[in-house]
Amino acid sequence: MGRVYMSLKDMINKANSKAYEAMNNSHPYWIDIDIASKAIKGFKDYMLLHAGPPTTWENASGPLKGALIGAVIYEGWAPTPEEAETLLRRGEVVLEPTHHYNVVGPMAGVVSPSMPIMIFHDKTYGNRSYTNLNEGLGKVLRYGAYGRDVIKRLEWMRDKLYPVLKAVIDEIRRDNGIGLDYKSIMMQALHMGDECHNRNNASNLLFLKEITPYMFRTGIDREDLVEAYKFISGNPTFTLNMNMAAAKLMALAAHNIEYSTVVTVIARNGTEVGIWISGLGNEWITAPSPIPHGVFFPGYSREDASGDIGDSAIMETAGLGGFAMAAAPAIINYVGGTIDFIVETVKKMYEITVGEHKYFTIPYLGFRGTPVAIDIRLVLKKGITPVLNTGIAHKEPGIGQIGAGIVELPLELFKKALRRYAEKYGI
Amino acid sequence: MGRVYMSLKDMINKANSKAYEAMNNSHPYWIDIDIASKAIKGFKDYMLLHAGPPTTWENASGPLKGALIGAVIYEGWAPTPEEAETLLRRGEVVLEPTHHYNVVGPMAGVVSPSMPIMIFHDKTYGNRSYTNLNEGLGKVLRYGAYGRDVIKRLEWMRDKLYPVLKAVIDEIRRDNGIGLDYKSIMMQALHMGDECHNRNNASNLLFLKEITPYMFRTGIDREDLVEAYKFISGNPTFTLNMNMAAAKLMALAAHNIEYSTVVTVIARNGTEVGIWISGLGNEWITAPSPIPHGVFFPGYSREDASGDIGDSAIMETAGLGGFAMAAAPAIINYVGGTIDFIVETVKKMYEITVGEHKYFTIPYLGFRGTPVAIDIRLVLKKGITPVLNTGIAHKEPGIGQIGAGIVELPLELFKKALRRYAEKYGI
Repeated sequence: MGRVYMSLKDMINKANSKAYEAMNNSHPYWIDIDIASKAIKGFKDYMLLHAGPPTTWENASGPLKGALIGAVIYEGWAPTPEEAETLLRRGEVVLEPTHHYNVVGPMAGVVSPSMPIMIFHDKTYGNRSYTNLNEGLGKVLRYGAYGRDVIKRLEWMRDKLYPVLKAVIDEIRRDNGIGLDYKSIMMQALHMGDECHNRNNASNLLFLKEITPYMFRTGIDREDLVEAYKFISGNPTFTLNMNMAAAKLMALAAHNIEYSTVVTVIARNGTEVGIWISGLGNEWITAPSPIPHGVFFPGYSREDASGDIGDSAIMETAGLGGFAMAAAPAIINYVGGTIDFIVETVKKMYEITVGEHKYFTIPYLGFRGTPVAIDIRLVLKKGITPVLNTGIAHKEPGIGQIGAGIVELPLELFKKALRRYAEKYGI
Repeated sequence: MGRVYMSLKDMINKANSKAYEAMNNSHPYWIDIDIASKAIKGFKDYMLLHAGPPTTWENASGPLKGALIGAVIYEGWAPTPEEAETLLRRGEVVLEPTHHYNVVGPMAGVVSPSMPIMIFHDKTYGNRSYTNLNEGLGKVLRYGAYGRDVIKRLEWMRDKLYPVLKAVIDEIRRDNGIGLDYKSIMMQALHMGDECHNRNNASNLLFLKEITPYMFRTGIDREDLVEAYKFISGNPTFTLNMNMAAAKLMALAAHNIEYSTVVTVIARNGTEVGIWISGLGNEWITAPSPIPHGVFFPGYSREDASGDIGDSAIMETAGLGGFAMAAAPAIINYVGGTIDFIVETVKKMYEITVGEHKYFTIPYLGFRGTPVAIDIRLVLKKGITPVLNTGIAHKEPGIGQIGAGIVELPLELFKKALRRYAEKYGI
């Protein structure tokens, strides 16, 4: 046979099928926990990672600024918020996007060199991803708070929680030679009312179920185990970061496929939202980050809200979160809306995705797979943009979370993406 | 003011409101675990409890016969199934219904004097209820199996699992002075895809979440803790029995209210289904037990099925199970049917119940309370009978579970109940 000539459309469809298959077949395991600077190649002193597309101190959103200040204090690079700010303003701390290191962090997503970081491995495709440990809700670094209690909690997480999780994952690997099958947890969680972004009650309990036998077996003091256990069990959001590291692997498996128009990153830094397109590699397409609609804590309103922020939209990138809300009806208590709204939203997302997930299914929709692999061509053709659910940070540094809600990405982002795609592929 | 004369209808409605309120306000706690003969007044040697209305060895269903044989062997009253059967046939073992002792047990529901039994307490109304420990799925005593492996498991539960649970509940009571708030677990489970009868994945994990910190604190050997933990975590049905003890307290709170036409027990022994009506006290109204429709394990069909069996319909009595299936869409993988069927079934149950539950809510129905407190007047008026979901046992003793499915109670049962009610109240 001679060479086969395919139309551009066929080439894109073929590339997108490949991206869809990879996103489905990726199989994330939690395999280790380590100190960030040791685990992540190129991560050095006086460098901080942050969620979303690249930014500068000057352009950083309030919550990102707050989190950067807190991380500088946590690292001991400056003793006070004022001195931390001076350091940051002078550019003495290098700021880099998490995604450039295959790291994902919710909200501000700030990771500093001495923070513990969980390591995930894709058993199918061999990739690695990383995420920081979730601090819980309220006044926490990732929402831009940096008070003494925030720093103290981070120190406890490094000094007490990290050794427990390290002992646990060592026991798990000693036992099965691999690590913890995390895809299985997410599959089950979807049948237990989670959508894996803003409702994580089930994945949290499923994670605890898996690690508890190994906790018993560690030589760690019983009261330290109790404290670590209660920290995780008292914070259903703990597994959000783990879900994100798993979703990052799924998206990564679909990334860098020539001609593919599938979205492989959606991430926000509070000022801008940025996306990656598989066929465009690590090039950021950005637009101003929208302000979420949602349910605000008493005393706050949308006026107080930062632009949407965080790497957690990797969940929607992988067909979860807003794309799986019909699996998680109880989420409307947190992000607002109605049952009809969440079901209709998921149904709309099927119009802009390559296919239905083979492993993540929604019982209420008759076990239909979640819509997965966003195709920017379909977004523009249908005029429907991805819907994310999200936590809402105060726009000023130092305050923290003020609500949770829903965000629709701007169509402009996808128009820009298609223009760049046309440029690159000479269409 | 003089005496107020109420119409019979008003008196019934008032009584039913009281029953409904009591069923809602009952607040079950798990407070202890003990050996059955010590915990349950009047429970003596050579006596066995069984699910459902009273029966005899001659009239017992296959799975009940199998479980009785197994219990006799477990107690050491006879060494072989043949000798056990002889003992039972000669009437040398007293058979009594569980409900006469405020005990509930799924399927055959056989409880013998030396089995460990969990004790539940109603913080609002002061009642006590009891349940045996769940053995898991498949070849187990409650489905009528009595092989050596079945007896060995029961022995392990008494010798190893019971001491762990005893140490745990002692730690809990030492800590909070009360016990484990079990209503809270059920409320959360309904938002995590359980209906608390045949889907218990969430209540199981929520229970483990609560007890694990106390497990760490017991002085028990770590490997014994691991074994006990894995037995519970590997068997989502473990909390079914606990749900039942809690539901029994709810139904008990609504029981014995003069004039009330509310159903306070639904229970089956495989031959007959029996109900209690609040205003009729502990009088059994019975009818032949229907054979469930459902999903059968490979190699089995409805031809092989026993009549419906077990005390577990106490869940539907308290507004859960079949009455809450719309909270648990993933259950159709187990009991069969479609999403539309389970939603429509729940909607139909609203037509025969006094009200909507104040604490047990269904996210998919916009957090509507589950239909609760079955009124036999409404059952007859609408011609709609309660729908239960259920496990299916083989009709022969010694085999075990062959499927799971759905049962509609016969209308005849409710006609008989109303006739007895009319007799008693001289209508």
